[in-house]
Amino acid sequence: MTTIKSPLSKEAREVAGKALQGALVDLLDLALVGKQAHWNVYGRHFRSIHLQLDEVVAFARTSSDTVAERAVAIGVAADGRASTIAETSGLPPIDAGQLSDDDVVKLFIDAFGTIIGRMRERIDVTADPDPVTQDVLIGITSELEKQYWMFQAELA
Amino acid sequence: MTTIKSPLSKEAREVAGKALQGALVDLLDLALVGKQAHWNVYGRHFRSIHLQLDEVVAFARTSSDTVAERAVAIGVAADGRASTIAETSGLPPIDAGQLSDDDVVKLFIDAFGTIIGRMRERIDVTADPDPVTQDVLIGITSELEKQYWMFQAELA
Amino acid sequence: MTTIKSPLSKEAREVAGKALQGALVDLLDLALVGKQAHWNVYGRHFRSIHLQLDEVVAFARTSSDTVAERAVAIGVAADGRASTIAETSGLPPIDAGQLSDDDVVKLFIDAFGTIIGRMRERIDVTADPDPVTQDVLIGITSELEKQYWMFQAELA
Amino acid sequence: MTTIKSPLSKEAREVAGKALQGALVDLLDLALVGKQAHWNVYGRHFRSIHLQLDEVVAFARTSSDTVAERAVAIGVAADGRASTIAETSGLPPIDAGQLSDDDVVKLFIDAFGTIIGRMRERIDVTADPDPVTQDVLIGITSELEKQYWMFQAELA
Amino acid sequence: MTTIKSPLSKEAREVAGKALQGALVDLLDLALVGKQAHWNVYGRHFRSIHLQLDEVVAFARTSSDTVAERAVAIGVAADGRASTIAETSGLPPIDAGQLSDDDVVKLFIDAFGTIIGRMRERIDVTADPDPVTQDVLIGITSELEKQYWMFQAELA
Amino acid sequence: MTTIKSPLSKEAREVAGKALQGALVDLLDLALVGKQAHWNVYGRHFRSIHLQLDEVVAFARTSSDTVAERAVAIGVAADGRASTIAETSGLPPIDAGQLSDDDVVKLFIDAFGTIIGRMRERIDVTADPDPVTQDVLIGITSELEKQYWMFQAELA
Amino acid sequence: MTTIKSPLSKEAREVAGKALQGALVDLLDLALVGKQAHWNVYGRHFRSIHLQLDEVVAFARTSSDTVAERAVAIGVAADGRASTIAETSGLPPIDAGQLSDDDVVKLFIDAFGTIIGRMRERIDVTADPDPVTQDVLIGITSELEKQYWMFQAELA
Amino acid sequence: MTTIKSPLSKEAREVAGKALQGALVDLLDLALVGKQAHWNVYGRHFRSIHLQLDEVVAFARTSSDTVAERAVAIGVAADGRASTIAETSGLPPIDAGQLSDDDVVKLFIDAFGTIIGRMRERIDVTADPDPVTQDVLIGITSELEKQYWMFQAELA
Amino acid sequence: MTTIKSPLSKEAREVAGKALQGALVDLLDLALVGKQAHWNVYGRHFRSIHLQLDEVVAFARTSSDTVAERAVAIGVAADGRASTIAETSGLPPIDAGQLSDDDVVKLFIDAFGTIIGRMRERIDVTADPDPVTQDVLIGITSELEKQYWMFQAELA
Amino acid sequence: MTTIKSPLSKEAREVAGKALQGALVDLLDLALVGKQAHWNVYGRHFRSIHLQLDEVVAFARTSSDTVAERAVAIGVAADGRASTIAETSGLPPIDAGQLSDDDVVKLFIDAFGTIIGRMRERIDVTADPDPVTQDVLIGITSELEKQYWMFQAELA
Amino acid sequence: MTTIKSPLSKEAREVAGKALQGALVDLLDLALVGKQAHWNVYGRHFRSIHLQLDEVVAFARTSSDTVAERAVAIGVAADGRASTIAETSGLPPIDAGQLSDDDVVKLFIDAFGTIIGRMRERIDVTADPDPVTQDVLIGITSELEKQYWMFQAELA
Amino acid sequence: MTTIKSPLSKEAREVAGKALQGALVDLLDLALVGKQAHWNVYGRHFRSIHLQLDEVVAFARTSSDTVAERAVAIGVAADGRASTIAETSGLPPIDAGQLSDDDVVKLFIDAFGTIIGRMRERIDVTADPDPVTQDVLIGITSELEKQYWMFQAELA
Repeated sequence: MTTIKSPLSKEAREVAGKALQGALVDLLDLALVGKQAHWNVYGRHFRSIHLQLDEVVAFARTSSDTVAERAVAIGVAADGRASTIAETSGLPPIDAGQLSDDDVVKLFIDAFGTIIGRMRERIDVTADPDPVTQDVLIGITSELEKQYWMFQAELA
Repeated sequence: MTTIKSPLSKEAREVAGKALQGALVDLLDLALVGKQAHWNVYGRHFRSIHLQLDEVVAFARTSSDTVAERAVAIGVAADGRASTIAETSGLPPIDAGQLSDDDVVKLFIDAFGTIIGRMRERIDVTADPDPVTQDVLIGITSELEKQYWMFQAELA
Repeated sequence: MTTIKSPLSKEAREVAGKALQGALVDLLDLALVGKQAHWNVYGRHFRSIHLQLDEVVAFARTSSDTVAERAVAIGVAADGRASTIAETSGLPPIDAGQLSDDDVVKLFIDAFGTIIGRMRERIDVTADPDPVTQDVLIGITSELEKQYWMFQAELA
Repeated sequence: MTTIKSPLSKEAREVAGKALQGALVDLLDLALVGKQAHWNVYGRHFRSIHLQLDEVVAFARTSSDTVAERAVAIGVAADGRASTIAETSGLPPIDAGQLSDDDVVKLFIDAFGTIIGRMRERIDVTADPDPVTQDVLIGITSELEKQYWMFQAELA
Repeated sequence: MTTIKSPLSKEAREVAGKALQGALVDLLDLALVGKQAHWNVYGRHFRSIHLQLDEVVAFARTSSDTVAERAVAIGVAADGRASTIAETSGLPPIDAGQLSDDDVVKLFIDAFGTIIGRMRERIDVTADPDPVTQDVLIGITSELEKQYWMFQAELA
Repeated sequence: MTTIKSPLSKEAREVAGKALQGALVDLLDLALVGKQAHWNVYGRHFRSIHLQLDEVVAFARTSSDTVAERAVAIGVAADGRASTIAETSGLPPIDAGQLSDDDVVKLFIDAFGTIIGRMRERIDVTADPDPVTQDVLIGITSELEKQYWMFQAELA
Repeated sequence: MTTIKSPLSKEAREVAGKALQGALVDLLDLALVGKQAHWNVYGRHFRSIHLQLDEVVAFARTSSDTVAERAVAIGVAADGRASTIAETSGLPPIDAGQLSDDDVVKLFIDAFGTIIGRMRERIDVTADPDPVTQDVLIGITSELEKQYWMFQAELA
Repeated sequence: MTTIKSPLSKEAREVAGKALQGALVDLLDLALVGKQAHWNVYGRHFRSIHLQLDEVVAFARTSSDTVAERAVAIGVAADGRASTIAETSGLPPIDAGQLSDDDVVKLFIDAFGTIIGRMRERIDVTADPDPVTQDVLIGITSELEKQYWMFQAELA
Repeated sequence: MTTIKSPLSKEAREVAGKALQGALVDLLDLALVGKQAHWNVYGRHFRSIHLQLDEVVAFARTSSDTVAERAVAIGVAADGRASTIAETSGLPPIDAGQLSDDDVVKLFIDAFGTIIGRMRERIDVTADPDPVTQDVLIGITSELEKQYWMFQAELA
Repeated sequence: MTTIKSPLSKEAREVAGKALQGALVDLLDLALVGKQAHWNVYGRHFRSIHLQLDEVVAFARTSSDTVAERAVAIGVAADGRASTIAETSGLPPIDAGQLSDDDVVKLFIDAFGTIIGRMRERIDVTADPDPVTQDVLIGITSELEKQYWMFQAELA
Repeated sequence: MTTIKSPLSKEAREVAGKALQGALVDLLDLALVGKQAHWNVYGRHFRSIHLQLDEVVAFARTSSDTVAERAVAIGVAADGRASTIAETSGLPPIDAGQLSDDDVVKLFIDAFGTIIGRMRERIDVTADPDPVTQDVLIGITSELEKQYWMFQAELA
Repeated sequence: MTTIKSPLSKEAREVAGKALQGALVDLLDLALVGKQAHWNVYGRHFRSIHLQLDEVVAFARTSSDTVAERAVAIGVAADGRASTIAETSGLPPIDAGQLSDDDVVKLFIDAFGTIIGRMRERIDVTADPDPVTQDVLIGITSELEKQYWMFQAELA
């Protein structure tokens, strides 16, 4: 991306850019998977989970936009195409077809656990090269961990 | 999807379900591609197109939700996973990396032209089996054709 | 109703007027039954269903108003009196007194199934005599079928 | 209604419960009759009365909900079904078909006069057994008497 | 209009384009005539009609915009110039100077009756060539017929 | 509190002041206990109860403010310090640590039952000395009894 | 006022009507005096009192409207003309010209003390003849006593 | 008012101050008379005039505040006390008791005609001494003349 | 227009009325021409100009309403019919069909230049006969000149 | 500024342009000085003045924008750079560091007094060359004189 | 709290959990003490401090919720019961009864000074074990230090 | 600034205070320069850049306020006077008079590049002495780098 002068050195940009691209794909997939379950869930807790998943999706969409624009702002093109998501997302796969409410809760506990682990690694590696990028990732992780708790509390 | 009693006959459900699943994938991909260009576009018209694409994305997200919930309401599971989009979307592919504003406008003229053609076929085939589904598709196509005009007018 | 000139022929007006009057009574009864269950429901899912029923009532009230004003607009007086509802509604009866959450969900699955069947007949018969009335009925049926799915998903 | 512990003694609950059930039916019928006239009124004052009646309906719906939830809160099931309204409402009957604006105003003066008389009796009998219920009824009566004046002023 | 690729065939575009251009002129004139009466009306019902006409104008402006953008979206230039309106509008003429409230109501009953007749023809002819355009016209006609009823009810 | 002239006699002020101070402590504790459960609840109904408790807290905070300002307005200092709440609240104690959703519902049924009993005594004793204070307490008790019903309905 | 049928007996109407007319004049004068001081106050606390007085005025205007419409609703004409206020208001007189902030606070302590004494008498005499009117007066007195405290607290 | 330094010379301040004080009294009385009629009007046009008068009152209150604060801003104390209004208002007197809708319209045509005449004199005399004050008076007169027309149009 | 008493002398009314009628036609035509270009514009700056023109139209509609109601308020009927606009507007003509963005900007520079010249003449001639009308015209001209600058700046 | 055609003659543009540039600098400095005091003020009236100054700043920013855009609209470039403000502002200087509340009030009385004198001269000189510019300056001066009074009233 | 999987190691969770529990108690007590003073303050600055304290309370409530949900999200139960606050809060005690405005300001300077010292220690110890928790504490401390300044500035 | 007790040591306060004062001046100048270009820009992209600059100004104003209040909160007086900005701002100078759209974009790329470099130094030096101040600076830099990208993308 030669047209945007990065405020970072080449090395710092590579580390921060890789962290942001990874976060972007995870968050975009979280939004897609959230909608997939929002539509296909069934069970006695259908309505509560149907609504809860829309909050997950709203957060995932907003934060994926933040992350992508941060990438571009440091001179790294963002890649959020369907094929990129399909190939590089860290989320566990989700089956086609209807999903019981219990299975949905378990799936999202699994998904949040995985994303949070990856986000904490990104927080670690970006601390030195770019504290501005790190601060963005910390804010998103804080909300991910809050949503992680809420799904766990439902199965507790 | 045995748990939801469809208001339609088996045959009608199959036709309408296929049309809705097709529309779902096209619209989800439109939202992803819209964001992809929103982030990576550059050129003298950057700001105008950056904003215009967010309107495309907002519409694509809302209407994909409408379409998916219509599918489930007639007893057909909706599939909006990244891999499904990557494999079955009718949209032309978009390159990774930065995109000039001219290329973005051309790309979306191409994309809208393709989706609209597919939507009009779906309108045709659903008229008899399910006028309710057809009415949903007509409303979405009307807005797609309006946005198609706007991108064309920019290159005219 | 001699004072309002109908945009329809006498025959078309009779068909459309009968369809609208039928829809009006069904929707008004849906609002009354929705409130009845909203107040008397109990069980572990009390709060979720209590809230969901208010959405049913809000939709039923809005769409009954649309249907009644459409009837008057084509020169047919609307009849939404308690006795008319009690005598001509197509909804299954609801018991007095407290209702368990499970029974409420089953009752509304039954009620939506019945209304939707009647609405689809009305869509069929109004296509030729008055496509404007048909379009109103299609829009309402689309939402009824969405709510039908949601109650079914809770028992699935 | 054995599942809800009443904050009142059995005797107090019976008196308050009967007053609330009576108010509920009157207010639900007021809403139905208000809409009936809202749709079918005609005459030089059509628009003014058409709008005024929607304010009557909005108030009647809100206060019927308050009254029904108060009944349930003291351990008395609320009954707002169409047949119960048709059989036990204290409102004067309203004819089917179109209604002149003058007749509508007279009808509502009659209706408000009747309901207010019944509400004031309910205020009297609930004072001792349950001042909380009485306070709810006083608030509703205050608004009913305000609307009563407004219809009278139109015919004065 | 060679710059916009129409989603319709040449024949379909001509039929739909003519229907839309006709509707555009009628609706723009309805807005102008609505304002003309809004300013010059007098009589005991001045205030009520003054306000009612602003609702007519708001609807006419919004729907004329919808119709014009639909025309352009199918590749047909929209013509809403004063001279075009003056020459091709289907509305009955309105006198200069002050207008009594009774005359205004009669004038708008006449105007709505005329426009509705023309709109229903447009609905008929567009059904086959373009169901999307037809759906737009149906929605506008539904509201026109509602306003037609309201003016009639005032003289009834 | 010598600086505020009370609109009440010394005797009336003492009775009303004691009632208000008692209500203040109960309501402040209700808000604290509501938040305690809001954070620590778990179980299949986690989300529904988590949200419901925030409504309890919002009401408890608003009404405690009303009650405290009423106390000061009649010349009685309000005491809402943590130690005062800990020592004089009438609410049943709540355990530290996580709480199952069933236990939370039972706890709040118990808590509302206790507060309502105390509020009804306060309503009785304030009737003569200060009907203004009594009216404030009646309004709050009405809402407490509504929330009491809702928690009971969940266990019914 | 022969045109409005009162829900009260002649004797009850006279007592309630006199209480309401008295409250009306006091509240209208409170609004006028509040604005008079709002404009002419000066001193180190100018801004705080200038803003506080607008809250007094807003409350006085709203509650005078409530009181006057209550009077008319029970069949008693309301009199809020300047000469009636000038002759029958119970408020202490206010000097023309500039007013120091201290003098304003003292003046309003005096004014609220006087109005509250009169309102409490009105609450007493209306209890039997019309509890609905009494409830209106209680609500207004509650707010007057709150504002009374606030002015006292400023001089304390 | 020695404490406020006027931006005007002594002579200019006297002329502008007198004009503003006169406008203040007229506008405050317009608000009082507007409310008096708002409460006591009756007749077939009750509702329309009842609402229209609240717009008169809202405007009169806002503009009286503007005028009074302009007076103080040029170093002239504003006098809006009930006795001052009763003695110096230029408005025609209004009878106590109920008022027919026709009489109300005539009364306000008379009142607006009188105020406008006085305002135009104030516009003339303030042009030279203070164009800022004149501009304030012009803006208020423009709205007064608009409302004058509306009442005239109702009797026309 | 014999029914509205003008606050102006016959001579003053003629001058002011003529100025207002002229402004009305220019502003109504500006709104029509603004929409005409809003729909038919094309070119690289399509979106920016499309949006800018809607601001022109919104302003032209609001100010034409102000001007027409000012005319009626001084006793002069307003004439805003399509034929009157077509015959007496001072705006340069606009071609049917598509318009390039450059041509639209030039057209509006031309149009604003013409209207502003006519408005400044109207400001001059109304100064003596009616400063209230003049103030209305000055306010509108200020905004016209602001929009004139913005179009010029785009071609600069 | 050769690119913008002025609606004024060269002479008129020079006079109006100079007045507007002068007003621009004074208002921009008022905003900067207002913030400077907003941050550094201390004393018993800290909070009241801290809030009051933000109202000064909001007004100064809005009106400086109005004035600058008026300048450009008549073909005169606006100069609001820090160095231009530092060199040509008419406001009295403000010390660095903390400021007592009394000193802040005195400083702003001094500042408003100075700006108002300069604005009144600008109102005088622009009357003939450009009444549109004069009207803009009159409106701003009206608000400046209102704020001037408020600061004076605090020290009175 | 065995049911929630912490994203932190046991050691990190203990440090972060202790810091969050400490912050929770301090903030909950700040809200209680803020309300205590809000009700019982008196003196010439009553109104300003009364309002300022509600801002303190609003912030303390919001941030205590954030802190408690962060604790639970890392697997540590939150304890905000009255007795826990009474026993472990770091805030200085507040006397019962009325409080002069000066004493309130001093008390809150003391309280903020104490809390800030404790928060800065918590920021230090959480940096390594959990930067996400640290970031939450930093954000809250930033606002606490801003409010600390404001109270100091009032006594300066 | 002896009156505000800093939560920082003398050394830490000096470092953080210097960083904040530097950021304050840069951001205030960014707001002034943003408005300067907002008014004087011309060219084919006038409207887009005119609007974009108002977003720059809004951000610059909000963040300068945050920075200044942070400075005062740590006991350092903020200096945002015009002369201080003129002398110590790090932004490149901007010419008086009209500015082409291309030159404006280049100017802001230059300005953002410079400010960001200075902000990153401030982030570095404040990490140890005050992480709270550092967090404020990081948040502002994140937004500055986002706007920097947008201007670059327009010239790319």
